[in-house]
Amino acid sequence: MITTELKDAIHRRRMIDVLLSGSTYADLVLKGGYIINVITREIYPGDVAVKGDRILLVGTADKLIGPATVVEDVSGKFISPGFIDSHMHFESAMLTVTEFSKLSIPTGTTTLVADPHEIGNVLGVPGMKAMIDEARTLPNRVLFTVPCLTPDVPGLETAGADITSKDMQDLLNDDYVQGIGELQGFSNVHPVYNNAPYLIDDLLASVSYAKSIGKTIEGNAPGLSGPELAAHIICGGGHVSCHETTTKEEMMEKLRYGVSVFMREGSSQRNMAECIRAITEEGMDSRRAILVSDDMVPEDLLKYGHMNDIVRRTIAVGIDPVEAIQMVTINPATHFGFQDIGLLAPGKKADIAVISDLAQMTIAQVYIGGVKLAENGELTRDIPSYIYPESVKKSVKRKPVKLTDLQLSSGGAHGSVRVRAIEVIPDQNLTGAGIYTAQVIDGVVQPSVENDLLPLLVVERHGRSGKIGKTFVRGMKLKAGAIAESVAHDTHNIIVTGTNYADMVTAVNRVIAMDGGIAMIEGGKVVGDLPLRIGGLMTDELTGKEMSARITELHRLAREELGCTLHVPFMHLSFLSLVTSPAWKITDIGLIDADAFTILPPLA
Amino acid sequence: MITTELKDAIHRRRMIDVLLSGSTYADLVLKGGYIINVITREIYPGDVAVKGDRILLVGTADKLIGPATVVEDVSGKFISPGFIDSHMHFESAMLTVTEFSKLSIPTGTTTLVADPHEIGNVLGVPGMKAMIDEARTLPNRVLFTVPCLTPDVPGLETAGADITSKDMQDLLNDDYVQGIGELQGFSNVHPVYNNAPYLIDDLLASVSYAKSIGKTIEGNAPGLSGPELAAHIICGGGHVSCHETTTKEEMMEKLRYGVSVFMREGSSQRNMAECIRAITEEGMDSRRAILVSDDMVPEDLLKYGHMNDIVRRTIAVGIDPVEAIQMVTINPATHFGFQDIGLLAPGKKADIAVISDLAQMTIAQVYIGGVKLAENGELTRDIPSYIYPESVKKSVKRKPVKLTDLQLSSGGAHGSVRVRAIEVIPDQNLTGAGIYTAQVIDGVVQPSVENDLLPLLVVERHGRSGKIGKTFVRGMKLKAGAIAESVAHDTHNIIVTGTNYADMVTAVNRVIAMDGGIAMIEGGKVVGDLPLRIGGLMTDELTGKEMSARITELHRLAREELGCTLHVPFMHLSFLSLVTSPAWKITDIGLIDADAFTILPPLA
Repeated sequence: MITTELKDAIHRRRMIDVLLSGSTYADLVLKGGYIINVITREIYPGDVAVKGDRILLVGTADKLIGPATVVEDVSGKFISPGFIDSHMHFESAMLTVTEFSKLSIPTGTTTLVADPHEIGNVLGVPGMKAMIDEARTLPNRVLFTVPCLTPDVPGLETAGADITSKDMQDLLNDDYVQGIGELQGFSNVHPVYNNAPYLIDDLLASVSYAKSIGKTIEGNAPGLSGPELAAHIICGGGHVSCHETTTKEEMMEKLRYGVSVFMREGSSQRNMAECIRAITEEGMDSRRAILVSDDMVPEDLLKYGHMNDIVRRTIAVGIDPVEAIQMVTINPATHFGFQDIGLLAPGKKADIAVISDLAQMTIAQVYIGGVKLAENGELTRDIPSYIYPESVKKSVKRKPVKLTDLQLSSGGAHGSVRVRAIEVIPDQNLTGAGIYTAQVIDGVVQPSVENDLLPLLVVERHGRSGKIGKTFVRGMKLKAGAIAESVAHDTHNIIVTGTNYADMVTAVNRVIAMDGGIAMIEGGKVVGDLPLRIGGLMTDELTGKEMSARITELHRLAREELGCTLHVPFMHLSFLSLVTSPAWKITDIGLIDADAFTILPPLA
Repeated sequence: MITTELKDAIHRRRMIDVLLSGSTYADLVLKGGYIINVITREIYPGDVAVKGDRILLVGTADKLIGPATVVEDVSGKFISPGFIDSHMHFESAMLTVTEFSKLSIPTGTTTLVADPHEIGNVLGVPGMKAMIDEARTLPNRVLFTVPCLTPDVPGLETAGADITSKDMQDLLNDDYVQGIGELQGFSNVHPVYNNAPYLIDDLLASVSYAKSIGKTIEGNAPGLSGPELAAHIICGGGHVSCHETTTKEEMMEKLRYGVSVFMREGSSQRNMAECIRAITEEGMDSRRAILVSDDMVPEDLLKYGHMNDIVRRTIAVGIDPVEAIQMVTINPATHFGFQDIGLLAPGKKADIAVISDLAQMTIAQVYIGGVKLAENGELTRDIPSYIYPESVKKSVKRKPVKLTDLQLSSGGAHGSVRVRAIEVIPDQNLTGAGIYTAQVIDGVVQPSVENDLLPLLVVERHGRSGKIGKTFVRGMKLKAGAIAESVAHDTHNIIVTGTNYADMVTAVNRVIAMDGGIAMIEGGKVVGDLPLRIGGLMTDELTGKEMSARITELHRLAREELGCTLHVPFMHLSFLSLVTSPAWKITDIGLIDADAFTILPPLA
């Protein structure tokens, strides 16, 4: 038994006194609103009475109002359970948990289920624990679903830490850890089964341990169907989610298979409008349909909102407002087994979003644990910035690179060679694969701006393999200079591309010098950069607003100074190393055929 | 981690092989049926493939059929998850868990959540553990929700064992114990709050301990509304059920309050038709509407069925068949947090009911853990009878009574006195209260057959207080003789009524001599009896069919030999001691005003 449970027991006794004695009273009453009931799928007039951090009563609360009760007039407004984002990564916003929360809370989101697998890949258990420690300081509910396997594809990439089943006991017994996060180590079902079956044993060990202590497991089954989908579900212990479902047909099959479908609708990938057709067109029961953001950038949080905006879009495609709100309240609460949030009822946590306009999902007030934290889009309580310990800020363990380290040798060939190139597909994580001719000068394979055929390298930066993987890329649309960054999924080595090797060297060394981040170099000079000192992924030096402005500026500089016409070039670059999705990817080990689990030489 | 979880982990690896290798196969395929999908609320064609005790795949299973696969042709039939009875008492059927299960399994019920509070009241923790030990021998899933307070009203009745929070650690850590059962110690919210507030502390301690180890808590909130309902829910930890909801308005309020409403629809009390109007008339989301039997007699199990018959009746009042089946599958599975039953999907237990006629809910086949246990209403596997240890068969600890023990003294009055009488309300647990005139002969208050005014006594039989509580009853409609029984809710002392004190003495002594049971005496002779040696509540000497025949015979004898025109007189008699429901009840301590928590003298 943990101390919060003991305090709850004592507090429940106090609540019973308020309800039955007639001589003690509620602390807070939201008076005269319309109750959003996500159990019965109704809206009706009512008050919400609160004692401490819990809801006392939903209904007529007049008799619970005493001389010291704070009464908030919410007449004409809708009182909803606070929203849950069931799958998100703080690292995508490059912000601390605190700075993300400061943008998220005023939009009505009161619970975040975060997957820290990016920082996990870099810093392992201590990195995730640093993030969890931050979460403990915050007023909103932040829980973590932790990776049970890093790197995703052992042997084909080098992470900063190798997380396996051996780490589960330590991680999963933390009360801020909800369970195991997205099971992407078994997303590529047949390649893993054929090439690395020992990974399945390790995943099953982690999953079974998690189940045995009452923790949950999230799946990740993009494109899987039939026996492959079944195998993924069974590996995950039988009760899993999928947040990478992109078609109506996939949605239908996954719901039929009992999967909780986390319809992704964040800054980069938006799948709700397609997935929701299983409900709007086929009339499927929506109890396991859940809305998640996955990846949110600060600019979108500021401009559009968070889960409230996702609900707004879901209403806009034809879902009843209360049914849409079920998808961010009771449905995820049920999926995770959260018994004290997700609905407004006696004994539940007073996590409440007061909505002034239901169709627009305009959030008037936000309460967490009975405390008003935001009103009219602004925080009403100060949430102090959180500074991370230095131990997580020295994650780049690599000496500066030299020109010869990065140059791709022609292997003795003269004139020209045939090179393998990863092909960028705009706005997608997956890539194409092609073979092209490149010129050789002094034994070095040369970039070609005209053909948009540029060197693409991953420089190991965890102080482990020391390797540099090399190949070429087509479609980065760079006209000058180089870009390097320590955000490179999922192992987050330094990925770099450029129109010339010299700028690439400077870019990599700039990232190393900053202890991680993004650097753009042109003609040997820094055109723009962004230090990301926490694991090379995030910063505690910028607020959400500052980060939003900085990213906008970097995008402008990439466009104007490097001539890059690609939408969000840093994000595209960062996904060229993600070996869990097809077709070719680059890691520190080399060019990877992600379907065959093999290493390819860059020269064809 | 328990060994079943370890075996599951190993088995999941084997299942993944079947799905991905192409060289191993399913053990069983149900081929060509219609899938009842309780997640999406659909019916569509499909197969179900099984490996060991788990479902491999729901869909097209042709590729999983190997040379040794058993293929069952279920074409034209409906394949449903096995049914769950979420609240029931074996004691109501007076049968062992085994004999009850043998009647229940062929009707498609694969999981029973039993509340053993009757045997708990008599024998305490060892009695419940004896029942749990029996359940471990059975192929169906039997879980227990155990009482955390016996007797229900300490001080006003004497049970065989005083269960309190001190017993929770021992009981709740058994893996066959799902959690705490119906919280009837706080059903009478205001009387308990005003008269026995220390009970609330003890209940909260039990509830909080249960929550801390991941166990569930069931409520019991008949007639409660507003703050009283809220207090009950909060005492129960915030996530509770109620199986005593009888009106549409109660159903609506409880669902709105987040309560899982267990619509009771057993042999004695039937509430579904009224409660379901919240769904059929008001359109409420039915996700927390659940069907339960509570009390089933063997005759009804044999004649009508079990949960299948309750589903049939629910369909008959206008609920879509799949929605009705949700109320006995996924809805209860979600309520209890059962992650591996309640739906047909990969990785779930292969607990399956094959239905040949959906409207009539005719059950063609039943599988539990992938094993076919019944076909066309008959068991296809032998389930051996279970014999209880002698330790639970010596529960009647009382020497024979004498005439003077039972006679109600007039206290010196002559001629006539005014006596307090409990008034039977046909087919209800609650009673009326009245004061009537009775004749006195030789200082003893006399029965009056003409006025249907008979002595009603409870003789303590647990070897504790030794007391005999005395009052009168109106409405038992006995014309001759006496009835005594050791089934007397909830403490199960010996309750007796009769038209003359001499037959009452003989009846009580017959129950004592049998080590518990039911006895009917007329003119000093045994007219009929039923030994119930297990705790004085159940028998392991009769099968369900034999019990059904015996009860029918006893009812005939009561009618013909004692002239009793009351429907089910033994059941009515047994509830006259239930002090948790209004208005007046009798215990070994005396006549109880159940609302005021006070003892009343029998003479007014």
